[in-house]
Amino acid sequence: MEYFSREIGRLIGELSSLPGIGSKSAQRLAFHIMNMPKDDVKRLSDALVTARENVCYCRECQTLTDDEVCPICANPKRNHRMIMVVEDSRDMAAYEKTREYEGVYHVLHGAISPMQGIGPEDIKLAELMQRLQHEVDEVIIATNSSLEGETTAMYLSKLIKPTGIKTTRIASGVPVGGDLEYIDEVTLTRALEGRTEL
Amino acid sequence: MEYFSREIGRLIGELSSLPGIGSKSAQRLAFHIMNMPKDDVKRLSDALVTARENVCYCRECQTLTDDEVCPICANPKRNHRMIMVVEDSRDMAAYEKTREYEGVYHVLHGAISPMQGIGPEDIKLAELMQRLQHEVDEVIIATNSSLEGETTAMYLSKLIKPTGIKTTRIASGVPVGGDLEYIDEVTLTRALEGRTEL
Repeated sequence: MEYFSREIGRLIGELSSLPGIGSKSAQRLAFHIMNMPKDDVKRLSDALVTARENVCYCRECQTLTDDEVCPICANPKRNHRMIMVVEDSRDMAAYEKTREYEGVYHVLHGAISPMQGIGPEDIKLAELMQRLQHEVDEVIIATNSSLEGETTAMYLSKLIKPTGIKTTRIASGVPVGGDLEYIDEVTLTRALEGRTEL
Repeated sequence: MEYFSREIGRLIGELSSLPGIGSKSAQRLAFHIMNMPKDDVKRLSDALVTARENVCYCRECQTLTDDEVCPICANPKRNHRMIMVVEDSRDMAAYEKTREYEGVYHVLHGAISPMQGIGPEDIKLAELMQRLQHEVDEVIIATNSSLEGETTAMYLSKLIKPTGIKTTRIASGVPVGGDLEYIDEVTLTRALEGRTEL
């Protein structure tokens, strides 16, 4: 990109290394940033460094946070005896948006994947088992509906069974608004198996 | 976003204020950044501030650069008697990618738009006219093929005509690989009008 001057070229390079940002978007962002007030750029740059510097795992649920305990775990109104296990912090955010879940979470930061060499010891499983030594009524396994997510769910349920704690898995089936015609066979089979009485 | 901790929430807010980055992408980027090595985050943050701090308009072509003169204007191998007028620095980059153009550029930083209250004095037109007082063989008008781009092209050609400098407009027509069936009537009419003998 010798037609961009050095600093702008460097910024475009840095931006395009982020996920989902190709060279075209990076260019557009860089020129947008060049036209932003200097103070706004400084604020963005500070937000990056500050967030990264202060980030740590929540002592309880292991989500990324900048306090010792994340806002959800610190909330006394949540049901701390119900734990939803998710693969990452974004999944937690997705469930929070529903405003339907009152319990707390546990973030694994990944899923078991023999293909990618990720074993049970590479995700935050030990921390979960530690938490289950306190009083817990139910563990809801909300890992993704992918091969890795299912493997993790299976492994988890086997691990938790001996403790006697109720373990559930979120339902798999046809998404709301989904058209049967376009839904894959595995999902349709799951939806059939998981049918409930009306 | 009270379920994200303060600093992460702030970073997501800053990121989602950028063009083309919605709240989902901002979330994904923020969590990616949280997992990046601290040095990489520092480098990205520095690139932002450094590029913004040092950016200025090229003395010749008005593109955004961090030197007094941009790499293209500073290149003695380019034909400095041929000036391509574009709306912004990204358009210049797009033409540079073709590797077919040997002349120099002039970046207007916008186009005339009575609808948005952007007049000739709001874009870098005076600077162009200044440049035309030196020896110039041809001005190629490469503003966008939009209403604003066409208005600007028309205005420019009238402004340049009295100087006697050859003024051309890039061709408008069916894009390469384009399927006539899906191309709008205005483009088809243009393509017909601009037909060349084989």
